[in-house]
Amino acid sequence: MLRDNTAAELKAIVGAGRYIDTPEALLAYSYDAFVQEAMPEAVILPETTAEVAAIMTIAHREGIPVTARGAGTSICGAPVPARKGIVLAFTRMDRIIAVNAPDRYCIVQPGVVNGDLQARLAKEGFFYPPDPGSFMVSTIGGNVAQNAGGPRCLKYGVTVDYVLSLEVVLASGEVIRFGSRNVKDVTGYRLSSLFCGSEGTLGIITEITLRVVPLPEATRTILAVYDDLDATAATVADIIGSGILPVALELMDKTVINAVEDSAGIGLPRHAEGLLLIEVDGVEEAVEKQMRTIVEKTRGHGATEVIEARTAAERDNLWTARRSAYGVFARLAPDCIVEDATVPVSHVPDMIRHIREIAGRYRLRIGILAHAGDGNMHPLIATDTRDKEEWQRVEAANREIFELAIQYNGTLSGEHGIGLAKIDYLPMAIDDATQAFMEKIKACVDPKGILNPGKFV
Amino acid sequence: MLRDNTAAELKAIVGAGRYIDTPEALLAYSYDAFVQEAMPEAVILPETTAEVAAIMTIAHREGIPVTARGAGTSICGAPVPARKGIVLAFTRMDRIIAVNAPDRYCIVQPGVVNGDLQARLAKEGFFYPPDPGSFMVSTIGGNVAQNAGGPRCLKYGVTVDYVLSLEVVLASGEVIRFGSRNVKDVTGYRLSSLFCGSEGTLGIITEITLRVVPLPEATRTILAVYDDLDATAATVADIIGSGILPVALELMDKTVINAVEDSAGIGLPRHAEGLLLIEVDGVEEAVEKQMRTIVEKTRGHGATEVIEARTAAERDNLWTARRSAYGVFARLAPDCIVEDATVPVSHVPDMIRHIREIAGRYRLRIGILAHAGDGNMHPLIATDTRDKEEWQRVEAANREIFELAIQYNGTLSGEHGIGLAKIDYLPMAIDDATQAFMEKIKACVDPKGILNPGKFV
Repeated sequence: MLRDNTAAELKAIVGAGRYIDTPEALLAYSYDAFVQEAMPEAVILPETTAEVAAIMTIAHREGIPVTARGAGTSICGAPVPARKGIVLAFTRMDRIIAVNAPDRYCIVQPGVVNGDLQARLAKEGFFYPPDPGSFMVSTIGGNVAQNAGGPRCLKYGVTVDYVLSLEVVLASGEVIRFGSRNVKDVTGYRLSSLFCGSEGTLGIITEITLRVVPLPEATRTILAVYDDLDATAATVADIIGSGILPVALELMDKTVINAVEDSAGIGLPRHAEGLLLIEVDGVEEAVEKQMRTIVEKTRGHGATEVIEARTAAERDNLWTARRSAYGVFARLAPDCIVEDATVPVSHVPDMIRHIREIAGRYRLRIGILAHAGDGNMHPLIATDTRDKEEWQRVEAANREIFELAIQYNGTLSGEHGIGLAKIDYLPMAIDDATQAFMEKIKACVDPKGILNPGKFV
Repeated sequence: MLRDNTAAELKAIVGAGRYIDTPEALLAYSYDAFVQEAMPEAVILPETTAEVAAIMTIAHREGIPVTARGAGTSICGAPVPARKGIVLAFTRMDRIIAVNAPDRYCIVQPGVVNGDLQARLAKEGFFYPPDPGSFMVSTIGGNVAQNAGGPRCLKYGVTVDYVLSLEVVLASGEVIRFGSRNVKDVTGYRLSSLFCGSEGTLGIITEITLRVVPLPEATRTILAVYDDLDATAATVADIIGSGILPVALELMDKTVINAVEDSAGIGLPRHAEGLLLIEVDGVEEAVEKQMRTIVEKTRGHGATEVIEARTAAERDNLWTARRSAYGVFARLAPDCIVEDATVPVSHVPDMIRHIREIAGRYRLRIGILAHAGDGNMHPLIATDTRDKEEWQRVEAANREIFELAIQYNGTLSGEHGIGLAKIDYLPMAIDDATQAFMEKIKACVDPKGILNPGKFV
């Protein structure tokens, strides 16, 4: 609990109704979709930038940790208040401020749900490409703080590629704005990129201007079925290496396929060793042609069946298989860990071979899922964190996967973030001088270390 | 001149042959393509990162300003050593270290010329999209330091969108590396974006990993001729607003057209009030269809003629008209100023109207050139900086153009940079709190202020 007079000051900013400090209510803000938890001392629901600034001014004066939170869908512990203090929950700052289709931008508050923004943009024939698995519930503020990815980022790029401008409340309570509504803008340091992906450790994002793009004229989606996982992976490297850029190129192994079938029963081929979900979009004629080439390549690598979605409903069905995989796997055991080590795409076949070998050696149930087209692996590990001996095997397996990724010039996390999940592994990817530089930037921007402490630096 | 013992120390690092301090040789490093000059005290041509680090260690100890330089094609004074000191010229660090087409990246030293990289990538069926006007001579290091743009950035994005990883020597001489070879990478702060576009004020870039993309299967290029400039501009806003995204959408007014014809005589229609050079690329069938829609739109807005390039030579010819405009205009008078205030595309017609009015009111010869598709205006002002009275009119006209751009939610510079040219105008675009934040970052990273002092902060 915060000191009484500090609590009273904070309550005076937002009113008692938006200041939460009863233990049962705080509990809902103590976890995300990762396995670590920490109780905040207070949760505040700001409605304006001015309120956030006033809250930060007090937190700074008192040295109270502040952790921003969107929908809490993070799977790395990023919004978990590891050092207690205040959670700023952006549920009430959920307004789409402007959509300007002719100039291809929109302005939103951080609490806007990604899926709601998509629905609004679709009315004007536009969309915002980054589509993390959680997009129906996760917020744009959280997406920006984590530099979120998603399946169609293969073609369209990740969150940072769409952030034109940010308004940020600094640790001190000062408000800064940078960037503009223009894709081309070299006026001043590119600060928006620094904040995007910083996991709330450098400032609190209170307004976001995003680039949006026109909806494609046509989309084609197929599912290619393989009786050999190596051949599945080889197809991925071949398609990307040959110069085709699908919207999405997703891979699932037999373990994942059968978990999805057990739960959802949507007719996936249980016998398959590997599936590729491939989507292309663009001008009708181009899409036809690209898909023909892709189908030839899948057949060339031995796909036993290629199922094409002929209707929007069939397409949704294929995507349901992919999108439900994490949720389904999470129900197999008390806990589900999903890592996202990422490698240059030519090493996807190597990584898949290694992960299978590691699963066998550590006697773990690992399902292989991947945004394979950009080398973004998603091994799913069904486990029980209460089983200490098994958890040790999970951690050892993860460390080996990370080591392999780094060895192939990959990275620890492609899109999920570091948070609490991978903080101990950072030195594998970031050398001492660079880590010291990150710490210097952090100390300069947040000298008291109150912004989401325990993450990154 | 540097103190004798310091000069001797520096000379010992690179050898006397790569240490320049004779006035006639220094002169070549005292200017870029902008109108301000400053003589360095020494020019050093490093060949390795270790040499750069050793030089910076001495410069830091002695508090000597250091300005990095590529080909010196900047048109904002960015590589001009405003506070003297050392110029680090990257002519000798011009090696393409790796090209990996299957994994879609390349690794280069900063002195690699953009055009040379394109030639190398083309052999493997790939290209690197950013194409500043100077691309045949400008270096990747300079492109990254300035976050360079170019015509085809309309479709493909600017330099920062292609920087995957950087090696940077800090002011202190320490070497840091961040990013990886993966498009998706959220492991640590996104520092590459901070350095890209920082005009050499935060560190010296010594190695660059860039994303590359496959060459398109087909390209179509047209020239649309108008007898009304407003109609020309209206076409631009209409094409972009309707959801089409050409590779490039370039605008030229009558003044520019006739200057190009006077010089190059390539058959442009001298009577035209406006020209649009429009290019689309992609899959053959898609390109055909998009170009049909674009041609319909140009006709709808009253284009009197639409010339299609039927061969690669004809296409080169159209691009020569566009690419030679700056050089041609620069020969009309002793000096040529080209600004690049940028606005959301729906305001391109407004900006063109205003710029014409301003040219008349200030009695200036202003040619209007623009990467119109992304609102990136390029008014060309033929002038003589020795004529103080005219120069005052140039500065007053520029200020009005900047004010209008800001009023339309635009920005001071879309791609040319701030350098010395626009440093005085920065407060129009960046508020005090944000400027203070930029200064804080600069002071943290470069406490002695030795990196390209006099720029940005």
